[in-house]
Amino acid sequence: MKLLFINGVNLNMTGIREKGIYGAQTLDEINAEIAARLTGDECVFYQSNCEGEICTSIHNAQQEGVDGIILNAGAFTHYSYAIRDAIASVTVPVVEVHMSNVHSREEFRHKSVLAEVCRGVVCGFGKNSYVLAAESFKL
Amino acid sequence: MKLLFINGVNLNMTGIREKGIYGAQTLDEINAEIAARLTGDECVFYQSNCEGEICTSIHNAQQEGVDGIILNAGAFTHYSYAIRDAIASVTVPVVEVHMSNVHSREEFRHKSVLAEVCRGVVCGFGKNSYVLAAESFKL
Amino acid sequence: MKLLFINGVNLNMTGIREKGIYGAQTLDEINAEIAARLTGDECVFYQSNCEGEICTSIHNAQQEGVDGIILNAGAFTHYSYAIRDAIASVTVPVVEVHMSNVHSREEFRHKSVLAEVCRGVVCGFGKNSYVLAAESFKL
Amino acid sequence: MKLLFINGVNLNMTGIREKGIYGAQTLDEINAEIAARLTGDECVFYQSNCEGEICTSIHNAQQEGVDGIILNAGAFTHYSYAIRDAIASVTVPVVEVHMSNVHSREEFRHKSVLAEVCRGVVCGFGKNSYVLAAESFKL
Amino acid sequence: MKLLFINGVNLNMTGIREKGIYGAQTLDEINAEIAARLTGDECVFYQSNCEGEICTSIHNAQQEGVDGIILNAGAFTHYSYAIRDAIASVTVPVVEVHMSNVHSREEFRHKSVLAEVCRGVVCGFGKNSYVLAAESFKL
Amino acid sequence: MKLLFINGVNLNMTGIREKGIYGAQTLDEINAEIAARLTGDECVFYQSNCEGEICTSIHNAQQEGVDGIILNAGAFTHYSYAIRDAIASVTVPVVEVHMSNVHSREEFRHKSVLAEVCRGVVCGFGKNSYVLAAESFKL
Amino acid sequence: MKLLFINGVNLNMTGIREKGIYGAQTLDEINAEIAARLTGDECVFYQSNCEGEICTSIHNAQQEGVDGIILNAGAFTHYSYAIRDAIASVTVPVVEVHMSNVHSREEFRHKSVLAEVCRGVVCGFGKNSYVLAAESFKL
Amino acid sequence: MKLLFINGVNLNMTGIREKGIYGAQTLDEINAEIAARLTGDECVFYQSNCEGEICTSIHNAQQEGVDGIILNAGAFTHYSYAIRDAIASVTVPVVEVHMSNVHSREEFRHKSVLAEVCRGVVCGFGKNSYVLAAESFKL
Amino acid sequence: MKLLFINGVNLNMTGIREKGIYGAQTLDEINAEIAARLTGDECVFYQSNCEGEICTSIHNAQQEGVDGIILNAGAFTHYSYAIRDAIASVTVPVVEVHMSNVHSREEFRHKSVLAEVCRGVVCGFGKNSYVLAAESFKL
Amino acid sequence: MKLLFINGVNLNMTGIREKGIYGAQTLDEINAEIAARLTGDECVFYQSNCEGEICTSIHNAQQEGVDGIILNAGAFTHYSYAIRDAIASVTVPVVEVHMSNVHSREEFRHKSVLAEVCRGVVCGFGKNSYVLAAESFKL
Amino acid sequence: MKLLFINGVNLNMTGIREKGIYGAQTLDEINAEIAARLTGDECVFYQSNCEGEICTSIHNAQQEGVDGIILNAGAFTHYSYAIRDAIASVTVPVVEVHMSNVHSREEFRHKSVLAEVCRGVVCGFGKNSYVLAAESFKL
Amino acid sequence: MKLLFINGVNLNMTGIREKGIYGAQTLDEINAEIAARLTGDECVFYQSNCEGEICTSIHNAQQEGVDGIILNAGAFTHYSYAIRDAIASVTVPVVEVHMSNVHSREEFRHKSVLAEVCRGVVCGFGKNSYVLAAESFKL
Repeated sequence: MKLLFINGVNLNMTGIREKGIYGAQTLDEINAEIAARLTGDECVFYQSNCEGEICTSIHNAQQEGVDGIILNAGAFTHYSYAIRDAIASVTVPVVEVHMSNVHSREEFRHKSVLAEVCRGVVCGFGKNSYVLAAESFKL
Repeated sequence: MKLLFINGVNLNMTGIREKGIYGAQTLDEINAEIAARLTGDECVFYQSNCEGEICTSIHNAQQEGVDGIILNAGAFTHYSYAIRDAIASVTVPVVEVHMSNVHSREEFRHKSVLAEVCRGVVCGFGKNSYVLAAESFKL
Repeated sequence: MKLLFINGVNLNMTGIREKGIYGAQTLDEINAEIAARLTGDECVFYQSNCEGEICTSIHNAQQEGVDGIILNAGAFTHYSYAIRDAIASVTVPVVEVHMSNVHSREEFRHKSVLAEVCRGVVCGFGKNSYVLAAESFKL
Repeated sequence: MKLLFINGVNLNMTGIREKGIYGAQTLDEINAEIAARLTGDECVFYQSNCEGEICTSIHNAQQEGVDGIILNAGAFTHYSYAIRDAIASVTVPVVEVHMSNVHSREEFRHKSVLAEVCRGVVCGFGKNSYVLAAESFKL
Repeated sequence: MKLLFINGVNLNMTGIREKGIYGAQTLDEINAEIAARLTGDECVFYQSNCEGEICTSIHNAQQEGVDGIILNAGAFTHYSYAIRDAIASVTVPVVEVHMSNVHSREEFRHKSVLAEVCRGVVCGFGKNSYVLAAESFKL
Repeated sequence: MKLLFINGVNLNMTGIREKGIYGAQTLDEINAEIAARLTGDECVFYQSNCEGEICTSIHNAQQEGVDGIILNAGAFTHYSYAIRDAIASVTVPVVEVHMSNVHSREEFRHKSVLAEVCRGVVCGFGKNSYVLAAESFKL
Repeated sequence: MKLLFINGVNLNMTGIREKGIYGAQTLDEINAEIAARLTGDECVFYQSNCEGEICTSIHNAQQEGVDGIILNAGAFTHYSYAIRDAIASVTVPVVEVHMSNVHSREEFRHKSVLAEVCRGVVCGFGKNSYVLAAESFKL
Repeated sequence: MKLLFINGVNLNMTGIREKGIYGAQTLDEINAEIAARLTGDECVFYQSNCEGEICTSIHNAQQEGVDGIILNAGAFTHYSYAIRDAIASVTVPVVEVHMSNVHSREEFRHKSVLAEVCRGVVCGFGKNSYVLAAESFKL
Repeated sequence: MKLLFINGVNLNMTGIREKGIYGAQTLDEINAEIAARLTGDECVFYQSNCEGEICTSIHNAQQEGVDGIILNAGAFTHYSYAIRDAIASVTVPVVEVHMSNVHSREEFRHKSVLAEVCRGVVCGFGKNSYVLAAESFKL
Repeated sequence: MKLLFINGVNLNMTGIREKGIYGAQTLDEINAEIAARLTGDECVFYQSNCEGEICTSIHNAQQEGVDGIILNAGAFTHYSYAIRDAIASVTVPVVEVHMSNVHSREEFRHKSVLAEVCRGVVCGFGKNSYVLAAESFKL
Repeated sequence: MKLLFINGVNLNMTGIREKGIYGAQTLDEINAEIAARLTGDECVFYQSNCEGEICTSIHNAQQEGVDGIILNAGAFTHYSYAIRDAIASVTVPVVEVHMSNVHSREEFRHKSVLAEVCRGVVCGFGKNSYVLAAESFKL
Repeated sequence: MKLLFINGVNLNMTGIREKGIYGAQTLDEINAEIAARLTGDECVFYQSNCEGEICTSIHNAQQEGVDGIILNAGAFTHYSYAIRDAIASVTVPVVEVHMSNVHSREEFRHKSVLAEVCRGVVCGFGKNSYVLAAESFKL
């Protein structure tokens, strides 16, 4: 199975800042750990701070043979109708993930504009949110 | 590990009605399948249509040695501050689950009053939502 | 025809308190009068103050051969998404009734969360609301 | 008993367009059927697309000896405070009716500005909504 | 001075119904009394239940040499953007009047969509609201 | 092609008042100019200040063989659910037009209750809005 | 008749600043002109920038034999529930006045928290608003 | 005097969990302390997690000769219109109490749907809220 | 114990006006009765219609050795963030009181901007609200 | 005439995905067809998924001699105040277009933050929306 | 340059209470420090807890030759339309300041009703907010 | 001190367009002037129309030894939770600035989603807003 992990805006700062919320591992370390758990699968990791590039990476997923997208859009989750429409424009299934439990943080994080067009949502399990989302494609 | 699966109001109708949304398996069949996957764990299954009884089952979980609660509160998810307070009153961690992707259904299902006091949320994966939530306790 | 009349929370107080709004007849007297008017039908009367039990009675209606449910959910009308989902989970048609005209009472009574999944609504005709709703099944 | 059936805006199109919602009978055919069921009563049928004319017909009802008005105001139901005040200005009782279950249609149809000043509401029973409303005056 | 008094929907019922709110004088009696007080002026009285006709009467006022319009639009006050635009389309000044104090009645009467384009507002003085508004043109 | 141009409330004042917004041409002059541009088509022009009459003209369009309706409903655009339902009750396609750019005017003009049931919307091009809407039927 | 004219916060600046809105006469000059028009009456003029003192002046009005209060509360109109309760606590009738048409100014000026407990409202006629309000007590 | 103390959902957890908010005494210990202070009165203590049972206990209070009800409905306070209607259906006076100051907690706890039909409210004094409420019946 | 009773705007009218709501005793008579009940304590009574003076009296309470403040802010309760900040700026505990049950009066009285920074709230017990609040400091 | 056609986020997917809504032609095919219809004009076509690049292309239009911009901003239409300000910062006129009728799709598509600063809006005519918008510059 | 520093309600408590937010210096000490930094200017310091007196001090500023007002209105910032109108009534420029960053405190502090009529706003720099605002008049 | 001045979307148009609001100096000229005033400091100037690049420049500031960021995010201020999270992810303090007084412009500009995580805000002083913000780091 080919899985594409897309991390959005500010997630390059994981493990560098705000370790209280996101833990002390960097995104690269987390990705390595995920790949290690999913040895039978092809894992592709992508990060961008740019909304438009995230849309493009979703557009391209299908012709690149991706079977499922695990998407942590960061703050874009809460207002990027552009990413929402990008998800709706492809047939590759997308699972929305968050490391923290967004529902116990600021009010503006309680609303996702992406969830409606995703297959499902996993949040609150730290780096394991990615793992659980990946496993959802294999059950 | 001892895991308590609580299914709330109307979930006794799973597999009997609205098969288009919830699939054709009954709750008992789903529970059996979950137990079969988690052979190393003690799985306890509870269903009630009564908000107060669900609160009581959450209260009792700790003294019964439960390590984690997987809670599908059904429609109570959206307005039962009573269940919310029950979750907040215990130290056993609770994961909120939904079989369907509630974010792509009616507006009133987009808001959970429980999520803020849960550890995390898993929704949209059918019966596998229970499995993924259970696995979250073991990662 | 087998008709199930479900009266929800506080309706056991009909004719005992607040006679200015609901009249001086008790629920039993009203039920007797309804049954007397519908002699050709099998009338079943059920009352409960418990949201979960009302859900269960709706679940059971179908296997008990009920042809139609006349439901006065009382205050549950305005917030019980649990009862709403119970109605949606069965194929027996449900008609929502109120004795008083809820639209000329407090603001919170103007909104029904049940009506969307009922066949129709009858309100404002006192005990005759039940009779008209019953007749709707026979026209 | 003298009963006035007022049909408001666009109801002249009943049975001509949108048969999926309103059925294939024209308003005249429905009126004829209603009159046939209420042979002991004097039934007057009135239709207008004009808000002001509907107000006038309500004003005139009393001096014309009308015992009850059955009012399907169509879309005016949702914003015509003019018709609301017309109802409040007469002592003839008015019952609001709708053929479809307005609560399971568009959001804007969930709010009636008329219901507060009507005796009661009947909706969801197709042409039988008129019949049930008429019967409410005779119970 | 030529003054046009426009009374909108349901005001033909003044003195006939709801005497508690509007007094026991008919609109004709009120108009006669107003005319008697304004003997040096030309008073024209117009009443219509039809929003469109009220717009037309406002359109025509200028070419008929009207110096000021005293407008009691009744319930149209609260939602008729059509009448609002009619007022904005002429240069004849318009004063909005109400016999009752609309601010101490139902919530929906607290908002006027006309007031923004009127010269001023007078409300709460019964039939004297018309007189005061007329006098405002002569001070 | 037979095209029906419906102009709603206050549009008879075009070119007479508020020339700053709508230009100095009267509605008749604009209509003549439109007809001159569409010589190969049959253009019918209708104007009414009355919401109900506009509904009726829409109802009648089909049996009169109209191929497309160009509708400038004026202020009715923003609250007339009656006209909305009239549009929905016919199969003749309707294009909503406005001469001014309603989005850069008052807040209440930003919302159209008609647009959802129209084929499309054209606004902001003065009298040319009608021409562009007409051309849309011929592309 | 003894009339008390209360001018609230910032009205001491009338004729000194913002002459475009309020004219070039000072409050003293306006008061003198009002007194000159009402020679048969005892006119008392009071101005304060202090909400509490305005409440006290309303409290004292009755024992001082005031027959009517003409109140221009300035910006307090829009949020002072204290002044509202002061008005409600006395039996002397109060008429709310504004020199400008508050409905064609900023949104926050469209809401009066005082109007509900006043006898009536007069606004938009410059200094004549005071005169008309005074006359309302004598009709 | 016979006083009924009703404790609603989750209050059985008092002194067991969340001691930071509610103190370290159990509900039984608190009840014992209250009874000890009110030796001249008959104190009845009732706790239920079930909304329907709380309604029933309120219904039964009158025939059981209860003089006053002290009600801490817990989270039901904020949405149970069922309990509200139960209170309204009896003539026994009810005082709403809370141990914590609900106004300095989560937003959803700021709104009580019960308070409107209670005699009064006491909150913020820990277990003494019950004592003060009880004393209110004896002043 | 030294207790400071602060009564805000319009409470000087107690017993003079609106006796139906507040009773026939004047504030002085109520204060005397309270002092008589609390003979072992030093009771200081203060009333002002001025928001700023109430803030100052709260500021001064601590250096004057006040142990607790009983505050009935009247209408200021609902909008005075100034008084709220004054309460937050001192360490003397404050209990908010109302004689009437504010929750069963006008909508604007349902919201207190003070309660969040008070120790607790007592309302609905007439003059006894002050007594119960005072007793709260001694339990 | 030099016309710039800007297509925003996800419009590169036109004709590739969601053909039910946008048709089976690709953006390049649509552009070619538009150019073929506007042979007398210079048509420049630009597409970007990046909000910032769209702003820059608008900034550059003037110095590049563009006479008019036809802008389909895709999902950016509904929240990009950045693009709005870019439009406001140039004097080249912009027409907002949409292929689908956005008013009959999801709620979030009903609001445009761009329209207020555009010359006009054209929506609902598929690829012809571009053509009509282009023609608007030539009438 | 003559600069008037107005400090509103509760700011007399600076340095006495809530030192965590406002620092340990008293208002007098802060004022002295400001004056020491602005030796070439005439600095006038005024503090009042009374909304009306603040309005009056703004009114008087111009005739007293004040070149600029630095206004920290405290809690009045969030609801005093009276102070807003006072600012609008004078031509002396006013800069709104706050010592704390009001945007990171309670929700009600996020809205200023004054800012619209001020020249600018400075917040978040402790006592330096006053200094920066003063310097703004001299750049 | 090393100061980073970040200018967001459309600010490259400063002095080129909309000179009435932003003045006639270009951004380069303004930057030069700022640098000239801060000769003892190292000033770095960055401008981008791209939200993601602005996030990246904030991320990089710390390792580049920046002591303070002066951020004018332009329209991104009002909706970019991405930039907000970028600010929250670094420890370098950020001051939000605007040249115009955003509170006296369109409604959408009144809300900043960035301010909560900034140290402070300076707005309304034209190019001097940058200078004052820079000075705030040195007081």
